[in-house]
Amino acid sequence: LRSDLAALETPRLLLSKTRLDRNIERMRARLAGFGVPLRPHIKTAKSVEVYARALGDAGVTVSTLQEAEYALRNGETDILYAVGISPNKLARAVALQSNGADLILTVDSMVAAQSVDEAGRAAGLRLPAVIEIDSDDHRAGVKPSSEDAGRIARFLADAGGASYRGLMTHAGGSYDCRSIDDIRAMAERERRAVVDTAAMLARGGIGSEIVSVGSTPTATFGKSFEGVSEVRAGVYMFQDLVMAGLQCCAIDDIALSVLTSVIGVRADKRRLIVDAGWMALSRDRGTASQAVDQGYGLVCDLAGAPIGGLIVVAANQEHGLVARRDGAAFDVSRFPVGTMLRILPNHACATAAQHDRYTVIDESGALLAEWPRCNGWGAG
Amino acid sequence: LRSDLAALETPRLLLSKTRLDRNIERMRARLAGFGVPLRPHIKTAKSVEVYARALGDAGVTVSTLQEAEYALRNGETDILYAVGISPNKLARAVALQSNGADLILTVDSMVAAQSVDEAGRAAGLRLPAVIEIDSDDHRAGVKPSSEDAGRIARFLADAGGASYRGLMTHAGGSYDCRSIDDIRAMAERERRAVVDTAAMLARGGIGSEIVSVGSTPTATFGKSFEGVSEVRAGVYMFQDLVMAGLQCCAIDDIALSVLTSVIGVRADKRRLIVDAGWMALSRDRGTASQAVDQGYGLVCDLAGAPIGGLIVVAANQEHGLVARRDGAAFDVSRFPVGTMLRILPNHACATAAQHDRYTVIDESGALLAEWPRCNGWGAG
Repeated sequence: LRSDLAALETPRLLLSKTRLDRNIERMRARLAGFGVPLRPHIKTAKSVEVYARALGDAGVTVSTLQEAEYALRNGETDILYAVGISPNKLARAVALQSNGADLILTVDSMVAAQSVDEAGRAAGLRLPAVIEIDSDDHRAGVKPSSEDAGRIARFLADAGGASYRGLMTHAGGSYDCRSIDDIRAMAERERRAVVDTAAMLARGGIGSEIVSVGSTPTATFGKSFEGVSEVRAGVYMFQDLVMAGLQCCAIDDIALSVLTSVIGVRADKRRLIVDAGWMALSRDRGTASQAVDQGYGLVCDLAGAPIGGLIVVAANQEHGLVARRDGAAFDVSRFPVGTMLRILPNHACATAAQHDRYTVIDESGALLAEWPRCNGWGAG
Repeated sequence: LRSDLAALETPRLLLSKTRLDRNIERMRARLAGFGVPLRPHIKTAKSVEVYARALGDAGVTVSTLQEAEYALRNGETDILYAVGISPNKLARAVALQSNGADLILTVDSMVAAQSVDEAGRAAGLRLPAVIEIDSDDHRAGVKPSSEDAGRIARFLADAGGASYRGLMTHAGGSYDCRSIDDIRAMAERERRAVVDTAAMLARGGIGSEIVSVGSTPTATFGKSFEGVSEVRAGVYMFQDLVMAGLQCCAIDDIALSVLTSVIGVRADKRRLIVDAGWMALSRDRGTASQAVDQGYGLVCDLAGAPIGGLIVVAANQEHGLVARRDGAAFDVSRFPVGTMLRILPNHACATAAQHDRYTVIDESGALLAEWPRCNGWGAG
């Protein structure tokens, strides 16, 4: 059945359903073992056909209001929008709430909390919000167990146009860890950041319904989720080379690949030219700082097996340059113009974002379906 | 009229019509001075509302068959597809040709030339092709004045299903130049690569109708286009920080920007968090190797004026981290949550590709139009 792939035009985004389902089941079983619900992050997949397979009872996480509207249209009402809200998105957030979504907003400042309250009061609604906690000094959030956290929680709890729903944190720093032990330490730090803050708030009489942590590495290796009400993760559904570099998965767990064709052969330069450039692969170089630098992606044959150290060493808009990682010569005559290859991505979120749909295949290469994505930010 | 921008949702791609028209007119006037036609490359704009303003008598250049189909639908028939053809795209190329396009394909090997000939013979057409010449040792192409060039040209000229149309080269290496003199030398090398090869072929009785060169840097600074039949360029319409770093434009020529909102303020970390991450900006780091590293983009106020050394120093999917380039403290209280900013892009092609349309503005910030883009590769 490999001829199914051989008949396709390139470049094209492939998704192995077998690997997708295996990755989802592995994470489901792991978190079920801890008795903690999973709230899948749909920013990686942006496709109901993908994330519906990962749903439990804890709703979804989104990174855009476009994803939130898409999830609501597809029947999901429990939606955590895990990016700090800006005032110019509140009209749309109100519309989602009015249309039946329990859209939980994220704030990490009094200014943002006040803007949520104002928008809620103007609409005659109490807009629910969580406070983002900075567990890893990485990006957004107030410090764990800080006065700021207490002040914002009190404001939300008492507000006429907002309500306090709980706490969330994301240990994005886990992507920079160098060992499983480091990731475990990061997971514990992530957990403690919100659990300790929730305990502090509880002593002041404020209960946190949501105590949310999450990243694929910390969800994969965390040893305790005590006190946590839910875990968020998204990349784990597809996995990628960055996750493989972190030992969160094996190379043959990676469910996404970009189908490409050889369009040029340069024996003199020890390289091939393929029709997957940064437009098809993205410019993500997430493995650049890892032990094994995969360039712009790891090159596989049509069956999905890596080919002796070949990576995409450079990328222009519609051209990728393929060479050995070590720069050594290889037998380019095995790859004449027209040869089809598959490239495993550094970062599933970034590579998938360059495409408007998935071509879904099984491990034999048979075509099963086309699943569209909800890209972009939508009207505004 | 600045309130037009202040009322928009973020992130959003803005295009200044004033700057666009100025950039287009400057390049038009320059090449008209040399008497050489411009064949605009539409891979940057992917929008007829943009590239129609740059059209002359020499058709368009495309990087995908999706762009070719879009151009044909919009009335353009003279189309150079400037990426080496793979056999699995030939059915679609034949359909374009049958539908009235003069779609000129690109080859740099006998294998590719033979596949074009076969597809043409099967369809009862002679598919026109140019041979790509490698003028800068950068990517694709056969060597200038090489036996390979002669062999492929002879094959195409004699083929029943293909025809020889000429030569093309792209000095992508011009992006790595360090001075205007270097770019001028690169432009001359680019010109000589195709002009000398065309002369060699002419001595063998093969005439080259197309002798095509192009890149925005070499088109901007080249001192001779003698023997060249057309120049290709695309980025010049928008310009970007990479082009500014190469002295191809000034910062205030850059017509594209990403409108964004402050969603977090971290005085302790000397930074702001904005809602333009790599999804809105792209992961392109084209200025990383230039004299001035602009991070993921240069931060401007709502009127488009750069703000004292602020750049996007890091990017996650929907979060950008803004700090001073030198890491110094700045008065973050000037930028409370909700403040709107504009980010100038490193690489116009890459940033525009993250969006499905342009919000067109004038220099006062008034909204003029929405222009959609033809992203992706289309059916296949």
